[in-house]
Amino acid sequence: MDLPGPGRRSAGVPADQATIRRSNLSLVLRHVSESGPCSRSAAAVETGLNKTTITSLVGELQARGLVKEIGPQHAGSVGRPGLALALDGSRVGALGVEVNVDYLAAFATDLAGRVLADRRIGFDAMGNDPGRSLDKLAQVIGKTVADLGRLGVAPAGITVAVPGLIDTATGTVVIAPNLGWHQVPVADRLRSAAPDVPITVDNDANLAALAEYRSGVAMGTPNLVYLTGEVGVGCGIISAGRLLNGADGFAGEAGHIMVDPAGERCGCGRIGCWETKVGLAALVRMATPDHAYGLGQVVRDPEERLAEMEQRRAEGDPRVDAGITEVGRWLGRGAAMLINLFNPRVVVLGGYFAQLADRIIPVAQTELDRLGMTAATSRCGFAASDLGFGAASRGGVHVVIERVLSDPTTIPIRTS
Amino acid sequence: MDLPGPGRRSAGVPADQATIRRSNLSLVLRHVSESGPCSRSAAAVETGLNKTTITSLVGELQARGLVKEIGPQHAGSVGRPGLALALDGSRVGALGVEVNVDYLAAFATDLAGRVLADRRIGFDAMGNDPGRSLDKLAQVIGKTVADLGRLGVAPAGITVAVPGLIDTATGTVVIAPNLGWHQVPVADRLRSAAPDVPITVDNDANLAALAEYRSGVAMGTPNLVYLTGEVGVGCGIISAGRLLNGADGFAGEAGHIMVDPAGERCGCGRIGCWETKVGLAALVRMATPDHAYGLGQVVRDPEERLAEMEQRRAEGDPRVDAGITEVGRWLGRGAAMLINLFNPRVVVLGGYFAQLADRIIPVAQTELDRLGMTAATSRCGFAASDLGFGAASRGGVHVVIERVLSDPTTIPIRTS
Repeated sequence: MDLPGPGRRSAGVPADQATIRRSNLSLVLRHVSESGPCSRSAAAVETGLNKTTITSLVGELQARGLVKEIGPQHAGSVGRPGLALALDGSRVGALGVEVNVDYLAAFATDLAGRVLADRRIGFDAMGNDPGRSLDKLAQVIGKTVADLGRLGVAPAGITVAVPGLIDTATGTVVIAPNLGWHQVPVADRLRSAAPDVPITVDNDANLAALAEYRSGVAMGTPNLVYLTGEVGVGCGIISAGRLLNGADGFAGEAGHIMVDPAGERCGCGRIGCWETKVGLAALVRMATPDHAYGLGQVVRDPEERLAEMEQRRAEGDPRVDAGITEVGRWLGRGAAMLINLFNPRVVVLGGYFAQLADRIIPVAQTELDRLGMTAATSRCGFAASDLGFGAASRGGVHVVIERVLSDPTTIPIRTS
Repeated sequence: MDLPGPGRRSAGVPADQATIRRSNLSLVLRHVSESGPCSRSAAAVETGLNKTTITSLVGELQARGLVKEIGPQHAGSVGRPGLALALDGSRVGALGVEVNVDYLAAFATDLAGRVLADRRIGFDAMGNDPGRSLDKLAQVIGKTVADLGRLGVAPAGITVAVPGLIDTATGTVVIAPNLGWHQVPVADRLRSAAPDVPITVDNDANLAALAEYRSGVAMGTPNLVYLTGEVGVGCGIISAGRLLNGADGFAGEAGHIMVDPAGERCGCGRIGCWETKVGLAALVRMATPDHAYGLGQVVRDPEERLAEMEQRRAEGDPRVDAGITEVGRWLGRGAAMLINLFNPRVVVLGGYFAQLADRIIPVAQTELDRLGMTAATSRCGFAASDLGFGAASRGGVHVVIERVLSDPTTIPIRTS
């Protein structure tokens, strides 16, 4: 008889009993996570593992505080109903934090997805040097970890979202123009805030794209492009259900693509970057010219700027709608480029694009229809994000949970 | 004791004995393919399967004509040397064909990679309607399959490369502007040429990108962009070792991205498409203006045009070098866009870009350094393809072989 082997593992990876055990723990945990409460028998059928193995694996997952038993499960079980298996939300959590131009944010859930923390505080990251900003972020992390601790939950990991180019391998910010950061070793600098918790760093738009895929308006759409209108433009791409990272984690840098060789100079020094057409600074400059922001220059208090625009529009200033129309046109042009290259099903708009969606999207759609390859654009539409400022830190939480599901042995067995 | 289970299989896929068996057949075949000849004992150690299982799996792979035994293998084997396992190249092959503007091509290897057919014939696909072109391609397929048959090799599949947008799910060409094709059910039309052989259709540049990754100048580079200069511009992207398809297989359509809002009208009807700057028609128009090709219009005999340019350049006509410089500049601008978005390690140039590489690359590199995000461009360079016109059909062969490695049960057990 042919014993089931570690069939789906990728060739080349050496398989010893430990790696097989680890992958089977992941298989069972992922199944419970994706299918919801289920009996051991159901888990055995679905995973193809025999009941002896399942029992042993579940015992270990319980000891690691990842799976718990809940009241008898009749549905689908054969013969005597057993207890159902469910994710254990009592002890293991995930934390995502974000540092952006004018705020710090923290979002935390337990393994079962229950929201345990969701805070955002105004902070002038541009006006402070990286050291002071990271000290402040470390305080937010420390406070949130302490809050989770009081609930008996320990974070399995922390993901830090930063609006810039991140060397994900080392957790170093290579450059974050809108923060004025250059070669900042973020992961190392934050280590002391949570000494025993693994810290990873990623681009804010990449993490927000992941959040849209896992829990936003485009939930479950494996091919999507996320665009966020901030001072600059952020972009994250989900392709075939995976975040597109590229060779170094730099993929999706759409803001500084030259879209107009005859355009103005960008804050980055180049000419005609997309950011100079659709970034918030560009809109402010067009809609309220008396706020003389240089292109690519930081816009203080984006919320106030937008509120002021609405005010002036109400007063009949035509430049506001004209500016929004111009942004919509260039947003459509850039979207046509991205749709030709990535062939997504949806382009999710975040940041100020989402706040002005009802006026920006119709203009962008018209331009998209004119410029995009019909075959791809006809099957793709715009959608406004509803995750707000929490998108990136929420995506950070998904990164941590995904890592736990991939290797449950990273969570220690409870000794007490 | 904990029996090895089908650990790495993705959650959700129901695992019965048949699927586990199939995945283990794939595991062993892939191991033999990637590691080269190895003993059964070595295969058992590497795959984590026990020897009883290996023996049973190898027996089936032999019966399917996928694996064979070769002379005793001493290296690494313990105790009495056993026979080594190797891919069996005697019966199972793969066929890739291509229809392009002015030629048809066919490339075939056996499972072990031995080249069995490599032919290219001039054919005016633009001057013939799709029906006649596919009839001619069917003849090429029929002849090649017959040649393989005489060698005792049966193709496990056929991949058809077409320069256009392909609905890969149905094998239909949605649109191929340079062939004048629109909604052509290629797979269905070719079925009769090889009734029992599965036929898939894909974009020529996508397949060429795969060929570069598997066997070209960028072999083994998991993040690469392939650009080919033809009448238009073809683009294929390999990201994290996978061909980027997008939601419908339309990803990588770089040729009709608007790079110059103030540019000329493209053959597609849009303004300032990248193709109008770097396509062969654009170069011919700049270098030899008396050949008045309309933009996006088909260039007859590309080889003759290029030879003629070299002739005029030798005669001292400055317009040739000027045209090549202008193409190089716009190639660098487009490459900057693609590198910002995909963060590849290398941009492989095919088609006429490769033929003029020594003059185009320096100009493109200068423009790239000026316009691309430094972090990504500094770790990426250009490379000229050496696969020539065979790239797409060669990539088609890799697609077929990959499918066999993924599911060996698609190859029937020899009854004789």
